[in-house]
Amino acid sequence: MIYRRRIQFYETDAQGIVHHSNYFRIFEESRGEFLRSVGIPYSKLREEGYEVVLLEAHCIFKQPIFYDQEVKVEVRLESLDKYFFWFSYNVFVEDSLKAVGKTKHCFVKNGKLVSIPQKLKSLLACQLDKET
Amino acid sequence: MIYRRRIQFYETDAQGIVHHSNYFRIFEESRGEFLRSVGIPYSKLREEGYEVVLLEAHCIFKQPIFYDQEVKVEVRLESLDKYFFWFSYNVFVEDSLKAVGKTKHCFVKNGKLVSIPQKLKSLLACQLDKET
Amino acid sequence: MIYRRRIQFYETDAQGIVHHSNYFRIFEESRGEFLRSVGIPYSKLREEGYEVVLLEAHCIFKQPIFYDQEVKVEVRLESLDKYFFWFSYNVFVEDSLKAVGKTKHCFVKNGKLVSIPQKLKSLLACQLDKET
Amino acid sequence: MIYRRRIQFYETDAQGIVHHSNYFRIFEESRGEFLRSVGIPYSKLREEGYEVVLLEAHCIFKQPIFYDQEVKVEVRLESLDKYFFWFSYNVFVEDSLKAVGKTKHCFVKNGKLVSIPQKLKSLLACQLDKET
Repeated sequence: MIYRRRIQFYETDAQGIVHHSNYFRIFEESRGEFLRSVGIPYSKLREEGYEVVLLEAHCIFKQPIFYDQEVKVEVRLESLDKYFFWFSYNVFVEDSLKAVGKTKHCFVKNGKLVSIPQKLKSLLACQLDKET
Repeated sequence: MIYRRRIQFYETDAQGIVHHSNYFRIFEESRGEFLRSVGIPYSKLREEGYEVVLLEAHCIFKQPIFYDQEVKVEVRLESLDKYFFWFSYNVFVEDSLKAVGKTKHCFVKNGKLVSIPQKLKSLLACQLDKET
Repeated sequence: MIYRRRIQFYETDAQGIVHHSNYFRIFEESRGEFLRSVGIPYSKLREEGYEVVLLEAHCIFKQPIFYDQEVKVEVRLESLDKYFFWFSYNVFVEDSLKAVGKTKHCFVKNGKLVSIPQKLKSLLACQLDKET
Repeated sequence: MIYRRRIQFYETDAQGIVHHSNYFRIFEESRGEFLRSVGIPYSKLREEGYEVVLLEAHCIFKQPIFYDQEVKVEVRLESLDKYFFWFSYNVFVEDSLKAVGKTKHCFVKNGKLVSIPQKLKSLLACQLDKET
């Protein structure tokens, strides 16, 4: 899936570029749109008592991003097993790759790790197929 | 009460100064230390089922604040009635006044406005006296 | 002008609602889109050596806003004189007014207060007329 | 080096825990104190025209951290060559390890990658020895 939005002034720092911590926020936004596009918005999962918990976050910053630039995030579901799933992110400004990231997640219900809900797993597995 | 801490890089923006939204975060920090100093840390109020809700926030920015500067916040309880209370904030770097703010709050329990808990009201009223 | 976008998870706090500091960031976003819609994106003003400096920020929070809700911001230029201008913001979720804010600004060039650039003043004054 | 500070309310999210993006901000704070403790505050490096640029950031989140908890960050310089250096971070609450992170950096002057300034390299190398 492709997620696009413009960089805000409050996301920059005194180096004049997007602060690195904000890339992880942009990843979260793109993940949210990915889930919505698959028909399972995170807000709905939360109503059903699930939390998606972030277990790992990684990012390689290749080139700075500046205020008012439009970023394009290619977000993909990379893998999925009984409990865990990974997303990957390629962040572009126009055709230039600015950053590459990945995050690992699981589902939690009532404070405990649970296997990925079956309905969701089918929908997600379908995305995995689509992308290969 | 006086609250001090150093400005972090992630609090700056591309103008090279502290982003205005972060002043309200520094106010929150100083408020937290104020409540702790009075013997009622906010985390403890939350365990008892109370939330402090913010109703208004105001700030006048007089001069910019820069990375690594140490800010000194004079935080005062300005007023207090059955339901509502106001804090005021003077933000200094060394002896230079950089910003002046105020915030209005109330207490909420089980999602409803409640009068300020009596124990807390006494402790707070005591601060009002001290400051006049 | 109307600015819309969805609330992100990272904008919420442990009260389960949008943290108050983030309203000022949403105001900034809406201001950016306002300037762009008038034909003077802030990034272009910065290339010409201007900074828009924020002098005051005020917000009254009427009701909480939650994750994944779509906010609609009515942003208006309220006043404009030789040096200073005010924006106002009404923040809605569907038809419910959640917050009311205003901010005061000026232009700075080479670190000094300057009168509002004439070209910009004409474009902005035009907006003032439109809204009355 | 050990860096300690308390978690603020604005750092939490609607899961009631510290938002993952903020760990990278806490890492930045601890890095800042590390450099200061070695006698080379980052603000001073910037006055000399250097920027420390972040190239990679990684974090494994082991257990959530909550509002008002005091985090203790063990920050270490892990490696250092002509151009690049890595920091590692162990984040504790009391004796419980909550997260493990690492970041890769380089120096930039006038927009170009430069070798690590010699004076700084000596001071940092000294830290490497101390820690092994």
